Amino acid sequence: MKKIVVDCDPGIDDALALALVAGCSDSLDLVGVTTVGGNVDLELTTANALALREFLRLDEAPVTPGSAGALLRHTVRASHVHGVTGLGDVVLPAPERGPADGHAVDYLVETLRAAPGEITLVAVGPLTNLALAVRREPRIVEWARDLVIMGGSYTRGNHNPAAEFNMLADPEAAAIVFEAGWTVTMLGLDVTLTAAVTSAVLERLRPLGRLSDLLVPAAQSYGVVTEVSGPAVHDACAVAYVVDPSLFTCVPAVVNVETVGQFTRGMTVTDFNVGDRRPNALVATAVDVPRFWDLVVGAYEKLAVRLG
Amino acid sequence: MKKIVVDCDPGIDDALALALVAGCSDSLDLVGVTTVGGNVDLELTTANALALREFLRLDEAPVTPGSAGALLRHTVRASHVHGVTGLGDVVLPAPERGPADGHAVDYLVETLRAAPGEITLVAVGPLTNLALAVRREPRIVEWARDLVIMGGSYTRGNHNPAAEFNMLADPEAAAIVFEAGWTVTMLGLDVTLTAAVTSAVLERLRPLGRLSDLLVPAAQSYGVVTEVSGPAVHDACAVAYVVDPSLFTCVPAVVNVETVGQFTRGMTVTDFNVGDRRPNALVATAVDVPRFWDLVVGAYEKLAVRLG
Amino acid sequence: MKKIVVDCDPGIDDALALALVAGCSDSLDLVGVTTVGGNVDLELTTANALALREFLRLDEAPVTPGSAGALLRHTVRASHVHGVTGLGDVVLPAPERGPADGHAVDYLVETLRAAPGEITLVAVGPLTNLALAVRREPRIVEWARDLVIMGGSYTRGNHNPAAEFNMLADPEAAAIVFEAGWTVTMLGLDVTLTAAVTSAVLERLRPLGRLSDLLVPAAQSYGVVTEVSGPAVHDACAVAYVVDPSLFTCVPAVVNVETVGQFTRGMTVTDFNVGDRRPNALVATAVDVPRFWDLVVGAYEKLAVRLG
Amino acid sequence: MKKIVVDCDPGIDDALALALVAGCSDSLDLVGVTTVGGNVDLELTTANALALREFLRLDEAPVTPGSAGALLRHTVRASHVHGVTGLGDVVLPAPERGPADGHAVDYLVETLRAAPGEITLVAVGPLTNLALAVRREPRIVEWARDLVIMGGSYTRGNHNPAAEFNMLADPEAAAIVFEAGWTVTMLGLDVTLTAAVTSAVLERLRPLGRLSDLLVPAAQSYGVVTEVSGPAVHDACAVAYVVDPSLFTCVPAVVNVETVGQFTRGMTVTDFNVGDRRPNALVATAVDVPRFWDLVVGAYEKLAVRLG
Repeated sequence: MKKIVVDCDPGIDDALALALVAGCSDSLDLVGVTTVGGNVDLELTTANALALREFLRLDEAPVTPGSAGALLRHTVRASHVHGVTGLGDVVLPAPERGPADGHAVDYLVETLRAAPGEITLVAVGPLTNLALAVRREPRIVEWARDLVIMGGSYTRGNHNPAAEFNMLADPEAAAIVFEAGWTVTMLGLDVTLTAAVTSAVLERLRPLGRLSDLLVPAAQSYGVVTEVSGPAVHDACAVAYVVDPSLFTCVPAVVNVETVGQFTRGMTVTDFNVGDRRPNALVATAVDVPRFWDLVVGAYEKLAVRLG
Repeated sequence: MKKIVVDCDPGIDDALALALVAGCSDSLDLVGVTTVGGNVDLELTTANALALREFLRLDEAPVTPGSAGALLRHTVRASHVHGVTGLGDVVLPAPERGPADGHAVDYLVETLRAAPGEITLVAVGPLTNLALAVRREPRIVEWARDLVIMGGSYTRGNHNPAAEFNMLADPEAAAIVFEAGWTVTMLGLDVTLTAAVTSAVLERLRPLGRLSDLLVPAAQSYGVVTEVSGPAVHDACAVAYVVDPSLFTCVPAVVNVETVGQFTRGMTVTDFNVGDRRPNALVATAVDVPRFWDLVVGAYEKLAVRLG
Repeated sequence: MKKIVVDCDPGIDDALALALVAGCSDSLDLVGVTTVGGNVDLELTTANALALREFLRLDEAPVTPGSAGALLRHTVRASHVHGVTGLGDVVLPAPERGPADGHAVDYLVETLRAAPGEITLVAVGPLTNLALAVRREPRIVEWARDLVIMGGSYTRGNHNPAAEFNMLADPEAAAIVFEAGWTVTMLGLDVTLTAAVTSAVLERLRPLGRLSDLLVPAAQSYGVVTEVSGPAVHDACAVAYVVDPSLFTCVPAVVNVETVGQFTRGMTVTDFNVGDRRPNALVATAVDVPRFWDLVVGAYEKLAVRLG
Repeated sequence: MKKIVVDCDPGIDDALALALVAGCSDSLDLVGVTTVGGNVDLELTTANALALREFLRLDEAPVTPGSAGALLRHTVRASHVHGVTGLGDVVLPAPERGPADGHAVDYLVETLRAAPGEITLVAVGPLTNLALAVRREPRIVEWARDLVIMGGSYTRGNHNPAAEFNMLADPEAAAIVFEAGWTVTMLGLDVTLTAAVTSAVLERLRPLGRLSDLLVPAAQSYGVVTEVSGPAVHDACAVAYVVDPSLFTCVPAVVNVETVGQFTRGMTVTDFNVGDRRPNALVATAVDVPRFWDLVVGAYEKLAVRLG
């Protein structure tokens, strides 16, 4: 069992990632969820996290809200992708329980302090909470077992030609996290875009009972599904990596986050030519797509049985 | 009585500022001190704050250590000004009590939360702690009664031609603090450099018993004292402003902190031509120097009586 | 006799500067005038230079038009200061002669090549032409006898808090010129703002016959004249410096032009603390105002006799 | 016959490109060559251009030297790739004729002015000369028939993760050229890296008599030749495009050159999502490699016959 804390901004693909967590309860122990403003505002990402927790029966995990906006200056949103609620066409029952007291930054610091070496951080939104936690308590870098992020790219961005959304949404936070001293496992667009929901995948998600009510509209409201292409399930890749790192090819690299550029703010400038520098990242360069979907759909199927 | 929390990095002029706080116990209630890495490393600024607390008999005020380095990237120090200990030639007895538990950022948030509208923040070092507190709990902007900083300049810098040391030491933090929504009272080099310890001032500091052991070497290790010029007591200006704002002429302005420039990082770009923008700062443009020294020396004299 | 070439963007104060050139015909030999887009568009600065040449009887000097816009990106204009024509309320007779063939950049290169060590460049607009000339023929740096500019500031700007207009109008060009290897004599706002047309000065300009038709409306359309303050005659300072450098106190400095800053583009970051670096500028820090006006008004009086 | 002017910095692949020009004398009329500092210093690029002209019997074309360094600030060289002479292990006979009088910038302006609509510019080095020409005479944008560059990338760089060498060597010049108003045909690393000299290609270059003395060591000193990979002939792609555009797939895009970034200066940020903006570039996204080599080797064979 790997203990994980998921820092997220649901977000459609965040929902698919949390569903994967729920489906992997054999191997993942979800200690807690923290939320951050990102795809949509913090109020919505928190509300969505709460609704997802109950729908997915992740009842043990506290949901602690965190940072509403970027560390410095501009807030960027992706409502054009995730819809006004942040969950596209997905409609979930209203949650009965509210968020935990306190703030995500404190929760992260205290949870890592309480279990040094045990917890893997899975961050699939802007890195504001993590950056603040690192600056509030630099020792979390040692206390965390691992940090796996969905974000960045070593080729091209999605929100603009240079930057991936999560990094663009808080470039300074991303810079702080990448420079903090740990090795960041980075699952960027380079691989996540290849893990697409094709029509064949979608067919496997349809017969999953109540869970299909989440999965199918999620996938469909996120992009066009065809035989050879479809919406990417970005954030689910980070969870899949924690469950089975062998699905991905990862290469050590030095990643610098551009914070200054006029056209390149938020770009994860990735140098595989490490030389004698310490690599600060392990960057995914390939994913075994069939095995990835087998893992994901298999987990969803298990979960579907539980959800009915 | 005005309640204040002093966020500082002692630092010679920080020492003179804390002595002024101690001497103004009729009008100032020192709730607590927080420390930040700045003039010298956090370990030293904290140790110096502890030693000063005992020497100055500010015993009620907890000293809570905070951020060791800047929010983003480079750490800048001013050991060439403040010496390796941070207090120049001043030697104080070793303190008996240690720092408070916890972190300055949490202390700031909780202290302001507990007394909304009551506490004036006096920040005389890099603004790292305040920036983290603002991002951790944006409502401190409403809870603080006022924020008075020593830092910046609307003309020229001191650490380089463009930037004053406290701002240069954490430009992103300064930008966050100035953009947070409150009105920052900024006492910059423009006025602090005019409040210099001339030989006439120094003569008034000599006959103050034990307190002179702090004040005189502090002043002398900080610059050359002549009849017409001398070292500036930057940080003491911020305390003096809280005691008697009428000493200073302050003008509303829009202050933007440059974070991107190649030669201008940390510059407080000050626009007095506010137009229809909300001024985010009240910038000191003049100080009544004779009245300033009367207030400062008078306070030191009162304190000297208490210290023996 | 000093040979000069004036690179300008008339512009009201450019007009006053050219009038000063005309009035100093005992000591200045105007070899040529080049124009640049700046205060207003190139078509207007060229037309104004032509009209001024004839009005001021500077008939020998060719007027060669140059660069229309900045080297890189944005064009900034100061029509709010100089009016739509660029000459405020001044109305001059239409010129009979047109501009010289060719381009200012070629003119500058060829003129300097033909008389190495003889010609002082007086640049009182954006430095686009000079930057292109330096890059086209780096040896002009050796060929020029001297380069005197009106531009920049070591304290505050005028177009915004950080930048003076001429530098802001082409920061990259300014950077190229300051880094080219010569020593730039910089007369910035720090001194030019002290050379103001007060009411006492204005009275001396009124009884100058036809020349008053230029000088008086120029001064008046440029700012409010009072007993103690008035519009600055920025560009005329650069000409006055060439005629009599003893009017100004100049200090060696290293000047870097900020090209990257978010709030500080075009700032002339001036470091008087040169250390063992080569100073690339001689920066005016003071002007003897009474002697300045004696020189300027005296020259205007001589010119007035000639113009009738 | 297409009239071309080649602006280059030989440079090994520049040599292969000029050889291709010589081999395509049926379809290309080489009007002139201009040189720029780039791969190596201007003195060397000019000397190499002169040697190549004679060796390749391009006798009619004047070689005019241009800019030695970048428009603004730092000069970057690629001697680690091209060797100290700029031509790797290639040794050519010393040329008998020297360069043309004048400067490349003037040559470009005058040549385009003299034949509006006729001349295609092929720029395969840093864009310094072209940028200066555009600013010296903006109408060259209309006068040029077309502008084809080797440079940039819409994915990753070569000199660093973000920037291709030619663009990094003068980012401001590149920005000026891309923003000048014409449509730049950009053959970047995305395609040029796929046009590699494999061992099969190399075998076709060996039996070409004297020409092989240039081609074979050029290829071999530039990278490791294997059955499936080898050194790219970047600059030759630009010439091949002019001869037969159908070899390449080109897509309209908006290209912005980053000039400000900390890790991304010189990056050609390429947005294929043009929307209602005017595309300023036609960006090559694929090359038909077999047809490319057929064209190139065929041209070399024809040339070999002439050279003996």
